[in-house]
Amino acid sequence: MKGTLSRAAIMAVGSELLTPIRTDTNSLYITEQLNRLGIEVVMKMIVGDDRRELAEAFRAARHRADLVVTIGGLGPTDDDVTREVVAETMGRALHEDGAITEQIRARFLARGFTTPMPEINRRQAMVPRGAAVLPNANGTAPGLWLERGNAAIVLLPGPPREMKPMLEAVISERLAPRAGGRGLFRRVLKIAGRAESDVDAQVAPVYGQWTHQAVPISTTILAVLGQIELHLTAAADHRAAADAALDVAVAALQDVLGASLFSVDGRNLEVVVGDLLRQGRLTIAVAESCTGGLLASRLTDVPGSSDYVERGVVCYSNRAKTELVGVSEAMIREYGAVSEPVAQAMAAGIRSRAGTNIAIGITGIAGPGGGTPEKPVGTVAVAVIGDEETRVRTFQFLGGRDMVKFQATQSALNMTRLMITKAGAGREWAERKSN
Amino acid sequence: MKGTLSRAAIMAVGSELLTPIRTDTNSLYITEQLNRLGIEVVMKMIVGDDRRELAEAFRAARHRADLVVTIGGLGPTDDDVTREVVAETMGRALHEDGAITEQIRARFLARGFTTPMPEINRRQAMVPRGAAVLPNANGTAPGLWLERGNAAIVLLPGPPREMKPMLEAVISERLAPRAGGRGLFRRVLKIAGRAESDVDAQVAPVYGQWTHQAVPISTTILAVLGQIELHLTAAADHRAAADAALDVAVAALQDVLGASLFSVDGRNLEVVVGDLLRQGRLTIAVAESCTGGLLASRLTDVPGSSDYVERGVVCYSNRAKTELVGVSEAMIREYGAVSEPVAQAMAAGIRSRAGTNIAIGITGIAGPGGGTPEKPVGTVAVAVIGDEETRVRTFQFLGGRDMVKFQATQSALNMTRLMITKAGAGREWAERKSN
Repeated sequence: MKGTLSRAAIMAVGSELLTPIRTDTNSLYITEQLNRLGIEVVMKMIVGDDRRELAEAFRAARHRADLVVTIGGLGPTDDDVTREVVAETMGRALHEDGAITEQIRARFLARGFTTPMPEINRRQAMVPRGAAVLPNANGTAPGLWLERGNAAIVLLPGPPREMKPMLEAVISERLAPRAGGRGLFRRVLKIAGRAESDVDAQVAPVYGQWTHQAVPISTTILAVLGQIELHLTAAADHRAAADAALDVAVAALQDVLGASLFSVDGRNLEVVVGDLLRQGRLTIAVAESCTGGLLASRLTDVPGSSDYVERGVVCYSNRAKTELVGVSEAMIREYGAVSEPVAQAMAAGIRSRAGTNIAIGITGIAGPGGGTPEKPVGTVAVAVIGDEETRVRTFQFLGGRDMVKFQATQSALNMTRLMITKAGAGREWAERKSN
Repeated sequence: MKGTLSRAAIMAVGSELLTPIRTDTNSLYITEQLNRLGIEVVMKMIVGDDRRELAEAFRAARHRADLVVTIGGLGPTDDDVTREVVAETMGRALHEDGAITEQIRARFLARGFTTPMPEINRRQAMVPRGAAVLPNANGTAPGLWLERGNAAIVLLPGPPREMKPMLEAVISERLAPRAGGRGLFRRVLKIAGRAESDVDAQVAPVYGQWTHQAVPISTTILAVLGQIELHLTAAADHRAAADAALDVAVAALQDVLGASLFSVDGRNLEVVVGDLLRQGRLTIAVAESCTGGLLASRLTDVPGSSDYVERGVVCYSNRAKTELVGVSEAMIREYGAVSEPVAQAMAAGIRSRAGTNIAIGITGIAGPGGGTPEKPVGTVAVAVIGDEETRVRTFQFLGGRDMVKFQATQSALNMTRLMITKAGAGREWAERKSN
């Protein structure tokens, strides 16, 4: 019986990962999968396609971890050295596995390449003595699994669509039976319309109690553009125990956070709003100025959104505001294009034309130009009109053009969510946020 | 006189960087800066806030590099151990630098905190014997510079707005005089409407000649969604020499790639199209179905785009197609909503209403639902109508909903670019791409 595996090192291999252009992101997915089994990632290394560097890094990784996961460097070219360096470092001879060669050859034929498999691809069929081959359903490079004593080494290919299914098979067939630690299970909660410090002051006394309970839960607060995320991580022997503890924790946070908490399952705001529209058999139309179509685009990022999105208009010129949503030149002269009356008139205009239950109007100054002392860059007026209610607010967002656009759509979606759920308009939070 | 520095290891410190939520990205910026000096990054490591792990990783990094750059772990709490571990590993005693303590204290006062500096912040004033202090203009944690023999170690804080100015000062004051290698200078070229293998086959014979010239240029080809990027990296003693060689290289690639090359200075396609519209004093309006506003949003991501974007409409329902751009129900019945005649009618309808020089119509099936054997998911028809010409094409894109939406907007922008520059419609490339 082999010992348990609890400490992992992840090594990403590839000279392109040491340039300013790219870095490893595969390790995030791998970490999530290993953490669920209770295997902690104690270090990550990124090395180039250099035999000596790779050998030294591999030795350092083995020294500190009982599971080493390498990513990349399994291709057929001279730059792909992971297989050979690992075999050499572990003192295992390589031999060609004829079955793999035939599989790669068949793959070339099946894909209709006019040339047969190049001889160079035979390198991918080389297997270190004692290693198990991990089949690759989506590419030519098979993975490898090696053991020495209680330690294990996994060699995975770099392309995510090849790496992920191979890792999943390794997890269920080889790692899960040997993972001794408590698994880590995460849940992501999302909060809109509030500041990080404000949320943390409110929830810290709550989550502070969870770190020493039978199923401990650690909490991380992250400020992402336009929303605050709470990442809860429960450590438990089984998923069921973690879920039970997480359910209690989420309920406690729901009590404290109230309507500002919009997602307890990782769903984005446009998905949450889409689900509410669908459940209520409601339709929506939007009239945008400064967000330039981003709100319509986010709403239509959701599969099936054609069931509730009727139309959108981007009124970038004043003439378009008049023609598309009936905002008069006189109104623009009186209040300015960026004003609550114009936002409300845009919403009313698109609503009557589209015949939807809900309509949104947005007008603002995305920057970098166009700001004035009274209406600086980042000033955005949003109006949401429903069957029973109208809500209008002015926000003052910080950041560059992209950030202002995104935050404006986030606030418009959140106002829509609060209106559909008949929650408070949240003006109080918005005022705190804009300070 | 100290020896030159040529090989760097970057260590990012922080347990949060070993979770599935976050990873190091600071190293990309640091790599770019070091590469310009001719210092190669030979490895990157990511370790947690653990004294023993950090000490072992630091020893491994020093073993392989003559410059070690650490990021993070310089804060005032028990979790911030970089300063102490580096001092201990190098056998340097720590002493409190009274001047730093006073600076931190003054900073707390200046920021109007109601409480004075907590005593815990004195940890940030601890300096290893022989180290130089790197001032932090944007935070309390000073950086540190240490030398031993010919090797150097730099400790930087984690927040980018503190790290970047500190690194820039270290570069000019300490690293530039000791960087012996040739600097690396990059240029990014972008290509639309072609497949990676196709581009590579065409340009490989060209860039293959540059690797052994006086100022060698290495080339990396990257397939990014909707475009191909060529990253040229010149190694030269001075920026002027690199620029001269890169100018020649770019001209050679322009000759070979012709109109498919849309950017030689990193500009995105929406910026290139915006610049063309502005130069030609042209205006534009768009009518979108499957892209749901993403095309308008990309066009309006560009500062000053209100000068040429007149309006956009998102006709998600058939009724909206009729009301907003005059596409008749009969036409939709005859050709289907996803068809070249409907795309063209959408473009014509928005163009006559908006009175713009150029108009774009897009209709397609973004998926995952809605596909048929004749018109599978990913089928998108795009029409561009200008003052002198109409171009209409049907594409077949691969990938999920987001990817289809993005590629459709990319193709629409590229058709617009080619029309304005009076280049070929590029149908030949599109057909290759869709195979």
